Amino acid sequence: MKVAVCGASGFAGAELVRICEVHPDFELVAVFADRSAGTSISESHPGLFGIDLAMLATEDLIPTVESFGIELVFLALPHGVSQRYVPGLLALGVMVVDLGADFRIKNPVLYEQWYGHQHERPELLSSAVYGLVEFNREELSGARFISAPGCYVTAATLAIKPLLEAGLVDSNPVVVDAASGVSGAGRSADLRYSYTSVQENFSAYGLRNHRHTVEMEVNTGATVLFTPHLAPMTRGILATCYMRATDLLMQMDRNEADALVASCYSDAFAGSIFVEATKIAPSTRMTYGSNRAFVYGCLDSRTGWVLGISALDNLLKGAAGQAVQAANVALGLPEDSGLNRFGVWP
Amino acid sequence: MKVAVCGASGFAGAELVRICEVHPDFELVAVFADRSAGTSISESHPGLFGIDLAMLATEDLIPTVESFGIELVFLALPHGVSQRYVPGLLALGVMVVDLGADFRIKNPVLYEQWYGHQHERPELLSSAVYGLVEFNREELSGARFISAPGCYVTAATLAIKPLLEAGLVDSNPVVVDAASGVSGAGRSADLRYSYTSVQENFSAYGLRNHRHTVEMEVNTGATVLFTPHLAPMTRGILATCYMRATDLLMQMDRNEADALVASCYSDAFAGSIFVEATKIAPSTRMTYGSNRAFVYGCLDSRTGWVLGISALDNLLKGAAGQAVQAANVALGLPEDSGLNRFGVWP
Amino acid sequence: MKVAVCGASGFAGAELVRICEVHPDFELVAVFADRSAGTSISESHPGLFGIDLAMLATEDLIPTVESFGIELVFLALPHGVSQRYVPGLLALGVMVVDLGADFRIKNPVLYEQWYGHQHERPELLSSAVYGLVEFNREELSGARFISAPGCYVTAATLAIKPLLEAGLVDSNPVVVDAASGVSGAGRSADLRYSYTSVQENFSAYGLRNHRHTVEMEVNTGATVLFTPHLAPMTRGILATCYMRATDLLMQMDRNEADALVASCYSDAFAGSIFVEATKIAPSTRMTYGSNRAFVYGCLDSRTGWVLGISALDNLLKGAAGQAVQAANVALGLPEDSGLNRFGVWP
Amino acid sequence: MKVAVCGASGFAGAELVRICEVHPDFELVAVFADRSAGTSISESHPGLFGIDLAMLATEDLIPTVESFGIELVFLALPHGVSQRYVPGLLALGVMVVDLGADFRIKNPVLYEQWYGHQHERPELLSSAVYGLVEFNREELSGARFISAPGCYVTAATLAIKPLLEAGLVDSNPVVVDAASGVSGAGRSADLRYSYTSVQENFSAYGLRNHRHTVEMEVNTGATVLFTPHLAPMTRGILATCYMRATDLLMQMDRNEADALVASCYSDAFAGSIFVEATKIAPSTRMTYGSNRAFVYGCLDSRTGWVLGISALDNLLKGAAGQAVQAANVALGLPEDSGLNRFGVWP
Repeated sequence: MKVAVCGASGFAGAELVRICEVHPDFELVAVFADRSAGTSISESHPGLFGIDLAMLATEDLIPTVESFGIELVFLALPHGVSQRYVPGLLALGVMVVDLGADFRIKNPVLYEQWYGHQHERPELLSSAVYGLVEFNREELSGARFISAPGCYVTAATLAIKPLLEAGLVDSNPVVVDAASGVSGAGRSADLRYSYTSVQENFSAYGLRNHRHTVEMEVNTGATVLFTPHLAPMTRGILATCYMRATDLLMQMDRNEADALVASCYSDAFAGSIFVEATKIAPSTRMTYGSNRAFVYGCLDSRTGWVLGISALDNLLKGAAGQAVQAANVALGLPEDSGLNRFGVWP
Repeated sequence: MKVAVCGASGFAGAELVRICEVHPDFELVAVFADRSAGTSISESHPGLFGIDLAMLATEDLIPTVESFGIELVFLALPHGVSQRYVPGLLALGVMVVDLGADFRIKNPVLYEQWYGHQHERPELLSSAVYGLVEFNREELSGARFISAPGCYVTAATLAIKPLLEAGLVDSNPVVVDAASGVSGAGRSADLRYSYTSVQENFSAYGLRNHRHTVEMEVNTGATVLFTPHLAPMTRGILATCYMRATDLLMQMDRNEADALVASCYSDAFAGSIFVEATKIAPSTRMTYGSNRAFVYGCLDSRTGWVLGISALDNLLKGAAGQAVQAANVALGLPEDSGLNRFGVWP
Repeated sequence: MKVAVCGASGFAGAELVRICEVHPDFELVAVFADRSAGTSISESHPGLFGIDLAMLATEDLIPTVESFGIELVFLALPHGVSQRYVPGLLALGVMVVDLGADFRIKNPVLYEQWYGHQHERPELLSSAVYGLVEFNREELSGARFISAPGCYVTAATLAIKPLLEAGLVDSNPVVVDAASGVSGAGRSADLRYSYTSVQENFSAYGLRNHRHTVEMEVNTGATVLFTPHLAPMTRGILATCYMRATDLLMQMDRNEADALVASCYSDAFAGSIFVEATKIAPSTRMTYGSNRAFVYGCLDSRTGWVLGISALDNLLKGAAGQAVQAANVALGLPEDSGLNRFGVWP
Repeated sequence: MKVAVCGASGFAGAELVRICEVHPDFELVAVFADRSAGTSISESHPGLFGIDLAMLATEDLIPTVESFGIELVFLALPHGVSQRYVPGLLALGVMVVDLGADFRIKNPVLYEQWYGHQHERPELLSSAVYGLVEFNREELSGARFISAPGCYVTAATLAIKPLLEAGLVDSNPVVVDAASGVSGAGRSADLRYSYTSVQENFSAYGLRNHRHTVEMEVNTGATVLFTPHLAPMTRGILATCYMRATDLLMQMDRNEADALVASCYSDAFAGSIFVEATKIAPSTRMTYGSNRAFVYGCLDSRTGWVLGISALDNLLKGAAGQAVQAANVALGLPEDSGLNRFGVWP
């Protein structure tokens, strides 16, 4: 099917382009990117040397989709921008996968509270199917409009939701302490993300009010304090989640409790090819260039905390890979079409 | 005064050697290192090219100290080893600064519980003055035997102790989530610390039972869950500490509460040249090559958590710099003799 | 077809395993690795988590190949070791692709001169087909024993051979100045390759007598001074080759000369999907995780030097990818079976 | 004496500020930086936290110098800008150390040829003393206007000039192949120097016509092809220089020749505290945070090339450290005032 990628000059856009190129059922026919319109995709992304599509202006998206007969559009746009294009695309009957945050929160009041402005298209919120395949496979089947979750939220949700739903941990308080590679900040000429600023540097940011907190809370039902950190690396997210053990866990001995936590994760992801429970704490390097996420947990009976740790590649399972995975499920294709299970090691 | 460094083939040892070379009152006359005995210090540490001291075997420490007339010995030895040498050095009347963990915990029962074996010299525990200058300046004055705290514990203590003592946070639960550069693991030919293993990798380790947890608890009175992480960098520790706000803070509005947290840190470190309260969250890069630590805090009134964040260079304020700073105070020298306030930027 | 990988605990071995897993015509049935025999492949390579093959001892290679019915064996062994196994494998009629240097130099006198010891199986040298597909496609067709070139030699040969054969440069003197990521040194617990040794470090090594010099000279007919450097990165080789322009080039104006150099490369690699001539100097990042190499050249008419610059991923086009590419050609399979044209960006 | 730094928002500027802060004879009273005028120095350089000087606009330089009674000004300005300020400063009788390229080339014709525009102040060229202390110590004594050489030129000159002057190598051809950390490109919000662009990337740039080539040629008398490379690191330059051995060397056996090369370097830098000849090839890490440079050489008798390799920290011996070292010599101060011999290791 004919596919277009919007936001192709960004990093998630680059991954979408690469995946579409190798996807057996997708034919990439157009790429859009405002700041680089008119240049070739490989000028922005030298790793894509040889893909000679010229980037078009995003404002030409709708007419281009129509004239090219495009059937599926991936939107990897800055926050708030996809709201402008989704209605027109849906009106054309085109399938849309939005990688932005615009349609993730169904409650417009919560949206306004955390994003600081009113939603422009609240009537469309309910039609967007949330693209976290592992928890939403059935609803995604046949979906025509998918809102794919982002990197931090995916990592936190994978680690928290199974334990909370199984009654092993309390919903409050939950602390999500996460570290991300700098590609999560997007491709931008900003001194904060220059090599000399990032190298040999580790810092916390977005303290207390990071916008994605609300999505973690909606997904899991927990009350979350989320603290993201910037790590000196290109890719990868590790979320270390702290949850209070319930009596159910605290009454067990430590080995029993650990086994229960482990089996809770194993069961939750039993049917998943892209999320796996591990027996030791995962590292981000295991996920580099792969669409897989790994989850591990254990109880500290001395202090009553349960640790849930998840790792993923923020540009794949945390962005472009997740979007294609959800599209595959929606289209009834093999879930891993175009996607790598094994990344680049070392 | 004549000084010796034991454990000179390690990273803290290298920093001790460098500092002693530029310290106006120290004359470095001997270096000891078992695995590299017989080779020059600069073979282990090319950055010290030009310091041509040959490393001696540690077992020759006592007779060498005696024959050379050494007056001050820094011990940067693997855990458990300094217990063997301290009694002999003290018997000679030599001043000792131990960078290891052997004499940090005064209670031998706690020591055994967390370190897994009995202390060999419990009778000396009480004579070791704890070398965290910012909280122990008076006791250090004139001290002849100093036990200097390590990197994680220093970072956590600086962030937790002032708030807890001021009644702004509860002592339980406290979560310390910290990330360290790989030099914290020491200089060792271990695949886990090879470039290809560390690069582009972020992971948690030492879950639940890291030995330094007990020292954080003793220093602050808090009940701590400590989760260290390995970050892809050489130096630096960032500790993000999560503490529950007391009613005192929760009754204030957010700005008042933040101001109170800030002034609590400012007051605690008012007389300190090496610990400073910042107005925004610090980053490890600010401390690279410097003996300074930075601390910042704020309240999330929505969830009731207080965040305390500290940054330091694990080999300086977290090891060698701290040891020299404590020795300076003990000897009545200027506190910053031999030490950099400004590190290497960028 | 049933495939085995020897040397699976190394980095080239890891890439071979990954490629075999996704190769549509290969079924990986056994992996061998002396130092890790008995453990799972994913214990050595966490990025291969989920491939649960246990590594076997290399000494069991021949009987295992026989009992499992293995038809193709990749050998990624330390220098000199494959000589021991090749005769037995060939005797069984098994196809062999050797990634080591043992069978690359056909002249046993040269071999001894540069490698410092006699070749043990000189009678087999002539039967090994050299696996640089771009220059040897026809000879590789149907080959049953392939000796694949390594990373530095591939990079240098791609940049030098076309210009020299076209008479644009002299064969003497030629300088090859190259930089490699540390994965080129293999997976070893060696302080020289620890993170703290490699990070923020750039150095030359193997001055004057690097063994691969001779292979560059044999491949191209040039007299080469080769200086490798270690760069603070995991993957990638950039070879900057300096060659003296012949009169043919010097008589042209600069633009003409540059165009001739460019078309010389374009023509040489016109039929190649994995080597491409670029219009600007390539960078290693363009090749990360890909089997592609890029080549660029230009003339400095002022000094009479021609610059030829090539970039590739040392573990793929410089090792495992090249080996599979050669095997594909030998077997009559699509040349890119199992191989990525686009790597990981960013 | 009262000192000012112009260009304080850049990296060399940051190092100048740091060095001035610890220099026993300098009192830093003003800092200038156009793009950050009005902000504190530590907003641009968090590592300088605590130095609360506000940056002034460069256009106010002359009046500020006058009203503050500033006696020494360091200029770390973009190419071409110092020409505007030097005449005014000299007219005031102020001592000037220029870190830019404006006054390095004494011949205005050569200047125009390589820099592409006419020099605005050719009459001042001869009054600028070239600040490479190791070759110009006497001329620098008492100098009031110093033009300090940059990083690549210093590295290349240290490696080439001694051998050429001793008649061990020919002046033509000489190839300088060098790699630099990204701080050499300055502090700029440019996608090319973002973390994701630099990390895991090695590339050549400035092919054939890099402006600093001419300075290498003027300093040494050689005809140079210079190829700089960008390495994934913050600091450090390694220059690998290829020179043709003269008959003098070629007639010797290899060990004799190597010994002669080594003693040539040792002799050249016998009186220098900041340049040292090494017995093995140096690495950039040895110089990190230090004002030292290291030089090593050897002959490849097989091909007739002499290798000369030098390493330095581009921001110190290649910029700010060199400038202060030259000022120290000019002022009759100890040559190492304010400067580190030992950098940060690891």
